[in-house]
Amino acid sequence: MSSLDFIFNPGQIAVIGASRSPQKIGYAVLDNIINSGFAGSIFPINPREEEIAGLKTYCSILDVKAPVDLAVICVPAKHATVVAEECGRAGGKGLIVISAGFKETGKEGLKLERELISICNRYGMRMLGPNCVGLMDTHSPLNASFAEGFPNRGNISFISQSGAMLVSILDWSFEMGMGFSRFISTGNKADLSEIDLIQSCADDPQTSVILCYAEDITDGERFVEVCSEASKKKPIIILKSGTSSAGAQAASSHTGALAGSNRAYDAAFRQSGVLRAESMNDLFDMARAFSTQPLPENSRTAIVTNAGGPAIVATDAVEKYGLKMARFTRETIDRLRENLPGEANIYNPVDILGDAGDDRYRFALETVLEDENVDNTLVLLCPAAVTEPEKTARTIVELNKKHNQKPVMAVYMGGKSLTAGRSHLTANSIPTFTFPEPSVNSLRGMVHYNEYLKEPALSESEPVKLDGIDQNAVRKTLDAVFADRRVVLLGHEASDVMSAYGIQVSKTYLATSEEEAAKIGAELGFPVALKISSPRIAHKTDVGGVAIGLHSDKEVRRAYGKIMENVHYYLPDAPIYGIEVQDMVDEGVEVIVGMSRDVQFGPLVVFGLGGIYVNLLEDVSFRLASGITTREEVKKMIAETKAFTLLKGYRGKKPADIEALSDTILRTARLVSDFREITEMDINPVRVHYQGATALDVKITVEEVNEKE
Amino acid sequence: MSSLDFIFNPGQIAVIGASRSPQKIGYAVLDNIINSGFAGSIFPINPREEEIAGLKTYCSILDVKAPVDLAVICVPAKHATVVAEECGRAGGKGLIVISAGFKETGKEGLKLERELISICNRYGMRMLGPNCVGLMDTHSPLNASFAEGFPNRGNISFISQSGAMLVSILDWSFEMGMGFSRFISTGNKADLSEIDLIQSCADDPQTSVILCYAEDITDGERFVEVCSEASKKKPIIILKSGTSSAGAQAASSHTGALAGSNRAYDAAFRQSGVLRAESMNDLFDMARAFSTQPLPENSRTAIVTNAGGPAIVATDAVEKYGLKMARFTRETIDRLRENLPGEANIYNPVDILGDAGDDRYRFALETVLEDENVDNTLVLLCPAAVTEPEKTARTIVELNKKHNQKPVMAVYMGGKSLTAGRSHLTANSIPTFTFPEPSVNSLRGMVHYNEYLKEPALSESEPVKLDGIDQNAVRKTLDAVFADRRVVLLGHEASDVMSAYGIQVSKTYLATSEEEAAKIGAELGFPVALKISSPRIAHKTDVGGVAIGLHSDKEVRRAYGKIMENVHYYLPDAPIYGIEVQDMVDEGVEVIVGMSRDVQFGPLVVFGLGGIYVNLLEDVSFRLASGITTREEVKKMIAETKAFTLLKGYRGKKPADIEALSDTILRTARLVSDFREITEMDINPVRVHYQGATALDVKITVEEVNEKE
Repeated sequence: MSSLDFIFNPGQIAVIGASRSPQKIGYAVLDNIINSGFAGSIFPINPREEEIAGLKTYCSILDVKAPVDLAVICVPAKHATVVAEECGRAGGKGLIVISAGFKETGKEGLKLERELISICNRYGMRMLGPNCVGLMDTHSPLNASFAEGFPNRGNISFISQSGAMLVSILDWSFEMGMGFSRFISTGNKADLSEIDLIQSCADDPQTSVILCYAEDITDGERFVEVCSEASKKKPIIILKSGTSSAGAQAASSHTGALAGSNRAYDAAFRQSGVLRAESMNDLFDMARAFSTQPLPENSRTAIVTNAGGPAIVATDAVEKYGLKMARFTRETIDRLRENLPGEANIYNPVDILGDAGDDRYRFALETVLEDENVDNTLVLLCPAAVTEPEKTARTIVELNKKHNQKPVMAVYMGGKSLTAGRSHLTANSIPTFTFPEPSVNSLRGMVHYNEYLKEPALSESEPVKLDGIDQNAVRKTLDAVFADRRVVLLGHEASDVMSAYGIQVSKTYLATSEEEAAKIGAELGFPVALKISSPRIAHKTDVGGVAIGLHSDKEVRRAYGKIMENVHYYLPDAPIYGIEVQDMVDEGVEVIVGMSRDVQFGPLVVFGLGGIYVNLLEDVSFRLASGITTREEVKKMIAETKAFTLLKGYRGKKPADIEALSDTILRTARLVSDFREITEMDINPVRVHYQGATALDVKITVEEVNEKE
Repeated sequence: MSSLDFIFNPGQIAVIGASRSPQKIGYAVLDNIINSGFAGSIFPINPREEEIAGLKTYCSILDVKAPVDLAVICVPAKHATVVAEECGRAGGKGLIVISAGFKETGKEGLKLERELISICNRYGMRMLGPNCVGLMDTHSPLNASFAEGFPNRGNISFISQSGAMLVSILDWSFEMGMGFSRFISTGNKADLSEIDLIQSCADDPQTSVILCYAEDITDGERFVEVCSEASKKKPIIILKSGTSSAGAQAASSHTGALAGSNRAYDAAFRQSGVLRAESMNDLFDMARAFSTQPLPENSRTAIVTNAGGPAIVATDAVEKYGLKMARFTRETIDRLRENLPGEANIYNPVDILGDAGDDRYRFALETVLEDENVDNTLVLLCPAAVTEPEKTARTIVELNKKHNQKPVMAVYMGGKSLTAGRSHLTANSIPTFTFPEPSVNSLRGMVHYNEYLKEPALSESEPVKLDGIDQNAVRKTLDAVFADRRVVLLGHEASDVMSAYGIQVSKTYLATSEEEAAKIGAELGFPVALKISSPRIAHKTDVGGVAIGLHSDKEVRRAYGKIMENVHYYLPDAPIYGIEVQDMVDEGVEVIVGMSRDVQFGPLVVFGLGGIYVNLLEDVSFRLASGITTREEVKKMIAETKAFTLLKGYRGKKPADIEALSDTILRTARLVSDFREITEMDINPVRVHYQGATALDVKITVEEVNEKE
């Protein structure tokens, strides 16, 4: 596993297309490398120049006659493949292709881009770009980009699929006093993607927080694998854009309609321990908190303030974001009571009043930081006549260093009168905000990340053992379906698949006449249910294709006729295989377990409240099938829904068998992982009884998989 | 209706407790009045001074011997009543009581505050405060506060219950380049509350937007009345804090548990056309948009950008906040195609590429502004080599003035390189943001407000006429309940109340023996339902107190015995009145209609998905009963829930009778408005049939009302 050192901290760099002309990118890149304080050798390549910026210039990288780790390519796209080939021949390890004119411009560009990739593969080179701004590493130091400016040194890495956003944030970061270890523009991601770069940043000792702006993630499974490991080392915060308009994909299953790629990203991020930023503000607010403060042990928040109103706003935010207001110990309350003015509020939030100078801030902040019931602290300050914003800033910094296990954030509400104090706070690693809500939101991110760190890593957990799985039986059923040129399994076939994976299913037999249906009913024992069997009919109830609770031979016969009549009325042309006869199963809570296959992340399993209202209520939770390997994780998945309240026994009802349900979900996840042929699946409902759980209606859609792919 | 001119723009002011000592509030207030450029007469009152700040000083306001519109009281609380009394005697019209030491300090303070109120009432004076910072009006001009600084002149009024927040925002506003017409600190709101002040600001020609920070609103009904009128003149945006921890009140009804004061505030704000800010950022972001830009006719948003990434983020926000991306006319697309580089994106968002100078911005922005399918425009700019941020800022300003029916917002993403452009934009009334999301959020506020303006005012709509209402019958039932010293109506009593208000209810009779139950069943016609009747039992199903679908004499008798057995088992000590026999009613969609009485806003009506899952699913919408007077409003209320999807006919089902349901809700609202004695009410379920709707289970809680109160 490479940490891409030859790209971020190369010994030698060639700038191919280096230029004397300040308007040219080849000028900006060379200029940036020199000015960044890069300590290695720099070789400008330009056949038309002898020397640029005081450096000897070469016709080609092949003329350098020395090893060159990294080449930055700034020549037009049409020449890029030639020079890339030369880099390979010269023994180069890394390329940064700044040049545009590749995939983003269409077919011709895509062809050129593919040539670049094949050259890299041939010579074992790694490539950033093409069509990128380049990269910066403030610790190497190296600015191999054409962007103006070099970030303040810090511990945040920012990986951006948008070059313009990278440049904007760089410019903005100076105003905010933020420091960065790396700025990386991924461009077209022809070779290196955010996955590789996250991995490299996770190994970079100078980076403590990894930020990423991504518009798409193309190798979902590898993303989960890499990030699951990386996020155990460092927080990864990603702003993923462009998912909203994707919406839920057109799909014939409930699960498909519920899923949509945004849900898959959510599930993948969750499983990988990646924090998802809701907005650009959110991304950088969290970055400031993570990059400067320790993780809070828990969410119990103390607030020290010199004003009531803003403290109420902060308290609202604590509740809104699911954190807790700390309950102070007896001792803390006594100390506060003894030392603060009588009108002060000594409970949380601690209101030290508008006439508080620095002394009072010092005393109150230190007291709450010493309280074992406090995990983190918010200091609010509003300007008033006797306020000492700068002195208090120094106090906050000092106490934060002393109590360095508990994060502190500052809300300095105001303008110019607080500028000096705010600058001191920012310069000394206290995340400082103008209004309370974003500070609490950042804290939430830290609390969630810490919870994730405390969980056992999925890779370290023993996957649950599932017995009674018969892959061959499923294979046989699928082969029969494919032989029949169908993509939807009939009810009894789906039942067979369930049984083969140890999922209890109501007994179902296909009848093709009234007589046969009545006979099967008698064998199963009344009551029974009848359901139309047709490859064209997805939602049987909607066309009058279902009858339940049939208690006698006569009722079965009548229902058979009625269903046929209904179906012929609604769908006169649908091919009908017959009617399935099913035994009636015990009462229970009806839930859905389903799967839809995401193009990036693979099988996505859904759980939620079942029945015909599933799409109406959308009371569902999602996981990647690959993440459902332990009972603990399944239980979390179940507990995220309101269906859980029903399962636990709602309003006097007996609790349902959550173990049996978990088993069904685990087996479903295994099934869809084992068979790539299964593209969509609904078990709706699964009826969860007092003991056991039964799949009542199973719909499985399949597609033949070309094994050679 | 007073516009409080004597407070905001008085002819003469007395400062009672004026001081020479710069540490004193009485100094700051006088100094502020003088420095604000106040043009009227100023009378410092201080028995120990001859002259302060060059002004003749009086012993008492009574010595002034001239009319004094406004007195600002800065003396200690214990002297405040004396000087207030003198103000009254001197013919003063308004008081601003800066002094603290009143209600906020406890019992003694409350007594003093009540004295102040009674003095004001006696002399017909209006009072701001006590315990407030004062007020500022930049147009009068007048700074009658002790805060440091005087806001830039503008058209925003800010009313704050938190003095510290007011001072903070003042300080911050300079940095933001925001202008204000008024800053008002409400303090303890002993007399003038935000309601009066909103009313006054709505009448103030210099104010275009009213902002308010409130921790509580004490006269809810008047708030709704005043704001409904004021919001038709100007947007009112309120940040209401401190509701989260209130949570849902402890209540025995479903509705009570769902309601909580936060829901009441939401319903009240909605009904009054008040926009509720979610955070402080939200409050001031919206203020900037409303105070500078015209309202968009609709939500169709165009984006012009020089960078792809940020435009995707903006597009996500447009979708997230429920706005629409504009679809350009053919003509617009052709013009863009002809005049922009080939690689530009000519659809929305219009990406004019990283090498766009001002010319390209001008062309693209003007083109989309001219498109009839565009209601508003977002301009995104990221710094690049050829970007002309300042020149483009001037272009945006110019085009915004030219196309002055369509709001334009700017997102200038970056730092120092954009400062000059940003300043020009802000100074010329273009709301300017660093990141895209808040700009879109502000736009959402404007779109919502415009939708509200287009609605007919509730006060102008003819309230629906409801016939067949018999108040006397309800009065008689309630009297019987009170005579019986009960607070919960028995089932048949509740049925009587429903019937008296023309709400169809299933027929219910009380039986006290098996025989009687069987007899009633036969009379009603089988099948029937049995339900336990006890003042102690709220949720009958939970104790086995309900049996349904009883088809015969025998089944009724067996169920009677079983219910009694169940109830004695669960609640051996509950008093049992008997068992109610009810006819079984037609199938339909089960919904809840209920009411809980909010302490501030009065009866709050709920509608939503019914049955035993109502509290689990929380698929509900709320309205104040006073707002439910038209069919249109009821239909909006119904349409906000998922239950609406079911009612319209979900998945092949026939639509339910929404007219009948609306009628039930209208009659319920009328009932709870007519009878203050009804404190809580659940009709759960109301079964909405293909034709008609029936109240199946009605629970009414009452409390005797002392008419003299």
